[in-house]
Amino acid sequence: MIAVLKRGVTSEQKDNLCNWFESMGLSVNISEGDYHTIIGLIGDTSKVDIELLEGLSIIESVKRISEPYKKANRKFHEDPTIVDVSGVKIGGGNFQIIAGPCSVESEEQCLSIATSVRASGATLLRGGAFKPRTSPYDFQGLHAQGLQLLEEAKAKTGLPIVSEIMNINDIELFQNVDLIQVGARNMQNFDLLRELGKLNKPILLKRGLANTLKELLMSAEYIMAGGNENVILCERGIRTFETYTRNTLDLSAVPALHELTHLPVVVDPSHASGISRFVERMAMAAAAAGADGLMIEVHNDPEHALCDGAQSVTPAQFDRIAQKVRKILDAAND
Amino acid sequence: MIAVLKRGVTSEQKDNLCNWFESMGLSVNISEGDYHTIIGLIGDTSKVDIELLEGLSIIESVKRISEPYKKANRKFHEDPTIVDVSGVKIGGGNFQIIAGPCSVESEEQCLSIATSVRASGATLLRGGAFKPRTSPYDFQGLHAQGLQLLEEAKAKTGLPIVSEIMNINDIELFQNVDLIQVGARNMQNFDLLRELGKLNKPILLKRGLANTLKELLMSAEYIMAGGNENVILCERGIRTFETYTRNTLDLSAVPALHELTHLPVVVDPSHASGISRFVERMAMAAAAAGADGLMIEVHNDPEHALCDGAQSVTPAQFDRIAQKVRKILDAAND
Amino acid sequence: MIAVLKRGVTSEQKDNLCNWFESMGLSVNISEGDYHTIIGLIGDTSKVDIELLEGLSIIESVKRISEPYKKANRKFHEDPTIVDVSGVKIGGGNFQIIAGPCSVESEEQCLSIATSVRASGATLLRGGAFKPRTSPYDFQGLHAQGLQLLEEAKAKTGLPIVSEIMNINDIELFQNVDLIQVGARNMQNFDLLRELGKLNKPILLKRGLANTLKELLMSAEYIMAGGNENVILCERGIRTFETYTRNTLDLSAVPALHELTHLPVVVDPSHASGISRFVERMAMAAAAAGADGLMIEVHNDPEHALCDGAQSVTPAQFDRIAQKVRKILDAAND
Amino acid sequence: MIAVLKRGVTSEQKDNLCNWFESMGLSVNISEGDYHTIIGLIGDTSKVDIELLEGLSIIESVKRISEPYKKANRKFHEDPTIVDVSGVKIGGGNFQIIAGPCSVESEEQCLSIATSVRASGATLLRGGAFKPRTSPYDFQGLHAQGLQLLEEAKAKTGLPIVSEIMNINDIELFQNVDLIQVGARNMQNFDLLRELGKLNKPILLKRGLANTLKELLMSAEYIMAGGNENVILCERGIRTFETYTRNTLDLSAVPALHELTHLPVVVDPSHASGISRFVERMAMAAAAAGADGLMIEVHNDPEHALCDGAQSVTPAQFDRIAQKVRKILDAAND
Repeated sequence: MIAVLKRGVTSEQKDNLCNWFESMGLSVNISEGDYHTIIGLIGDTSKVDIELLEGLSIIESVKRISEPYKKANRKFHEDPTIVDVSGVKIGGGNFQIIAGPCSVESEEQCLSIATSVRASGATLLRGGAFKPRTSPYDFQGLHAQGLQLLEEAKAKTGLPIVSEIMNINDIELFQNVDLIQVGARNMQNFDLLRELGKLNKPILLKRGLANTLKELLMSAEYIMAGGNENVILCERGIRTFETYTRNTLDLSAVPALHELTHLPVVVDPSHASGISRFVERMAMAAAAAGADGLMIEVHNDPEHALCDGAQSVTPAQFDRIAQKVRKILDAAND
Repeated sequence: MIAVLKRGVTSEQKDNLCNWFESMGLSVNISEGDYHTIIGLIGDTSKVDIELLEGLSIIESVKRISEPYKKANRKFHEDPTIVDVSGVKIGGGNFQIIAGPCSVESEEQCLSIATSVRASGATLLRGGAFKPRTSPYDFQGLHAQGLQLLEEAKAKTGLPIVSEIMNINDIELFQNVDLIQVGARNMQNFDLLRELGKLNKPILLKRGLANTLKELLMSAEYIMAGGNENVILCERGIRTFETYTRNTLDLSAVPALHELTHLPVVVDPSHASGISRFVERMAMAAAAAGADGLMIEVHNDPEHALCDGAQSVTPAQFDRIAQKVRKILDAAND
Repeated sequence: MIAVLKRGVTSEQKDNLCNWFESMGLSVNISEGDYHTIIGLIGDTSKVDIELLEGLSIIESVKRISEPYKKANRKFHEDPTIVDVSGVKIGGGNFQIIAGPCSVESEEQCLSIATSVRASGATLLRGGAFKPRTSPYDFQGLHAQGLQLLEEAKAKTGLPIVSEIMNINDIELFQNVDLIQVGARNMQNFDLLRELGKLNKPILLKRGLANTLKELLMSAEYIMAGGNENVILCERGIRTFETYTRNTLDLSAVPALHELTHLPVVVDPSHASGISRFVERMAMAAAAAGADGLMIEVHNDPEHALCDGAQSVTPAQFDRIAQKVRKILDAAND
Repeated sequence: MIAVLKRGVTSEQKDNLCNWFESMGLSVNISEGDYHTIIGLIGDTSKVDIELLEGLSIIESVKRISEPYKKANRKFHEDPTIVDVSGVKIGGGNFQIIAGPCSVESEEQCLSIATSVRASGATLLRGGAFKPRTSPYDFQGLHAQGLQLLEEAKAKTGLPIVSEIMNINDIELFQNVDLIQVGARNMQNFDLLRELGKLNKPILLKRGLANTLKELLMSAEYIMAGGNENVILCERGIRTFETYTRNTLDLSAVPALHELTHLPVVVDPSHASGISRFVERMAMAAAAAGADGLMIEVHNDPEHALCDGAQSVTPAQFDRIAQKVRKILDAAND
């Protein structure tokens, strides 16, 4: 960590500051310039609170050299982590497709989609039972009953299941869910992350709408700091000024995260664009970018239902997407 | 609500759609153009799920005419709401200053700041007991003990207290807190909002870092839909590309919110800039912009403590700010 | 176009407004609701100034149904445009790679890179002679001499050349440049666009750092309105809150632009991330997303020169990228 | 400037790099940590190209300590600059209001508004003759004739005039314009800035829609580097995700710019919100924030004309705004 002092700082202030750093077990290295004094801090700076430091009136700026996340950091864990979701491995060369309906609606819908996506090559079944909606008047999901329907579909198809949690108090309901998802709006719900860190179950952590990759990794660190290191990261589109697509899929996040962390990275092209006709191309692009998996929304009859999101593809479209993605993966690894 | 159909939609598709709208109790008005058909929907459209509608393959775009929030909407509630916080009124011409430390640290710190800000004109005492921190390794607050210290300061100074909640399960701990704050990162923690809607206690709802005013109002609507209409909105800076200040204070949010809603609007100039030397000017500007109140962080000894945020002012600086703000208010209302 | 009137507008105001619309040759269709009156305008609304309309005190909001760009609009020109750059075709199934140095530095550098990228499969040579730099103290390019060096490389390799223009007064210097590039910072330099619209030469128009796709298309329309319809669009990354990469490559722009316009779309993965080690993956992803071409920076000796951008790859890396991209294209079109 | 080297850099690479720095006249100070080597550079680093340095494969990151702008930097010029616009002083305690129509339309309109705003206390007359419009089909201004009408209004009222330039070739037409404005979209039109740096006439430089304050200062530096140090900066709203207002006025830019630079800072509340009914409050807030002046659009008869922007106020509204602003200034300076 480097701290730049303002011009005019007295020797006494400088000494006090250095003593404080040394009291935290850090070594201090000082360079004096004409306009600035630069203090280099060597040692374990992950516990130094950068915002507090920046707040001191004698400090001009502070720069971290070491990242404040340790368990998620690839520097200290060179091999890629392979997360095992009830027998399905993700990461380190294991590519998986998670597919299923946006919301679980009925036994028939859930089972029909599960059967169909398994036939097309999906290896994990997703389905929403608790839905974060911006309006209190919109459908909020079937809750416990939705999870029940997912478990039945799992019993019949053998696909491990993935569903989103919104509330610490629901953790018990998720005991048969194989991969618990934290949605974008809860990426910085630190109390929820901390509780999930106490579980022995994989967590799929989605990037927030306006969050940086480092913030995503700090949120993963919250989970890992509690002892649960089975975290899968998910890029699902960020908010930009573009309004033609609902969000903007940031595919450079894939190589960037692979450089910063050892955790697997999956891409959700359905939420990112919010437009089902773009899912095929963006799924192919994500595979070409090196993602460890995809998460795709599939609906059995979008037109008839009159209540399915713009972002869901039909089982037939999903089958074609899965084939295209396999071809891209073969070409990329050729 | 207006729905624009794509070119080439068949009469049958159009009829199905119109029947569906009519089954929801809406009147339908159709205009046919050369390239598009426009459907105007008249009636209570707040229950129409706009994302679901946009998902239909026959729809080109949808535009709401009526806002999806009703209880927060000024159109249906012309007079400004005055929220009563244990006797201190905010809104509708009642301007209040909330002040206090970022984090509650000790009895002495808390009481000393409370006494001092009351003398300068603050009418509510703020203090953090549960702190949302991006790193799991940073100080997270004194929790129940912090709330206890605030209650003691309240007992001695008479100032009603304001503190941030992060977790549904902590609601019981907040029974003596007079105004419960929801932080920016929890603005869309819908389960938390829903629970707060069941209380009979004022809520201070902060705008999320990358959220629009309409999203803020939808979150207020979550609280109000549960029956708790005592909501105060807080502008505290949004994320922009500017990095010199931590966030960008959006003061046009003040007149904009006053137009869109009847709820009071307070401004937090401390978090917005993250720089204590800008707090005075931004507090003055917020008062000039028509805010119903301010929320300002005050620390008793920023230098010595070596652990206070860049955003806190000293009691002496706060006293000067409070005086300046009163002069601006007098000038603005002259 | 739809205009929503405010509540309380008088019949006379409504009549005046409708008369004004009709005087512009538009048909008017009125729906009256309880809270709003909606006016649908049918006819050629591309000349209605939407900002001016929104300015009227009786108007609540305005929504365009037809896009304000006509020549660039795919609705009126269904087949993809194939732009011919001195014999090299781009678009409509013709995929091309543009490669070359960020800045032209010397005869030897320029020719060596040109020879090498041609051998790897590049079909157009790029090189900067006029460089937009944020600091007046940074290297600004070799100007006329740089263009001269590009022309010599073209004479020896047969590759048509691409270079960026910054100034109307330089147009004459660009007479032997085969494809004139407009940089991101000049995307809304309307006077420059208008002059380029008078030429009979292809233009490569880059998307601005914070511009939407519709704004990009309006800028293309400026060029096309003058008679020059040979426009190639370029996605080169947009500004977001992510700082690990210099910009964020928006690959959903590729299918989105193919839907909105008939013009070809190329992707520049070098500028987008600003990190050479990400160029391979992002070039592959762009090909998978359906781009009509790529623009890649190549430098002959990044290390030795001590003055090459983080974003350039070596000729050997470029060769590998070109091979990977061809495999992805084959897989995508399989 | 500080450069952090990657782990595993060889001594030879390190020596080469240090020799290169020393060849630029810089002193080098090295700190070796377990994971990183930090190189501190002392001396005039304004000519070190930071992007080039970041591009080296041995570099992990680079941080500037000294800002790359010198002439605009308050560190080297402590007193505020007072710009003299044909006798009207701005900055250093001199507050001025620039007012006038968005576009100059006719002799009668221009003179009538000029007379009226002068009576209300405006000291400079603004008017657009060259209008940057996103659509080539929208009105682009009266050009030379518009400047002519402004000059006539100046002759009759004595108010110095302000108008926007879009094109190097128009400089001659602006010889009687007292303050030349560079619009937000041209903030990084570096060739235009360089030419304006050769004039002996004040320049009003507007901040770009998605630009940081440091980028604004680098653009000011382009003008100043040519010898023209009469630059006035203008905050006019930045692009954010908020859509209720057209842009978001960043008032913390006022104290921030006053800290970073000695140049005067004016605020344009009309363009920022795009909504005339917010201009009064935002003008008051800008004055309270410490701005050196305001720039306000005024139209003589918005309703009748049917072609005025939402952002213009009437002369009567302007008169009230000017009074309110004076009261706020008195209170702020009390």
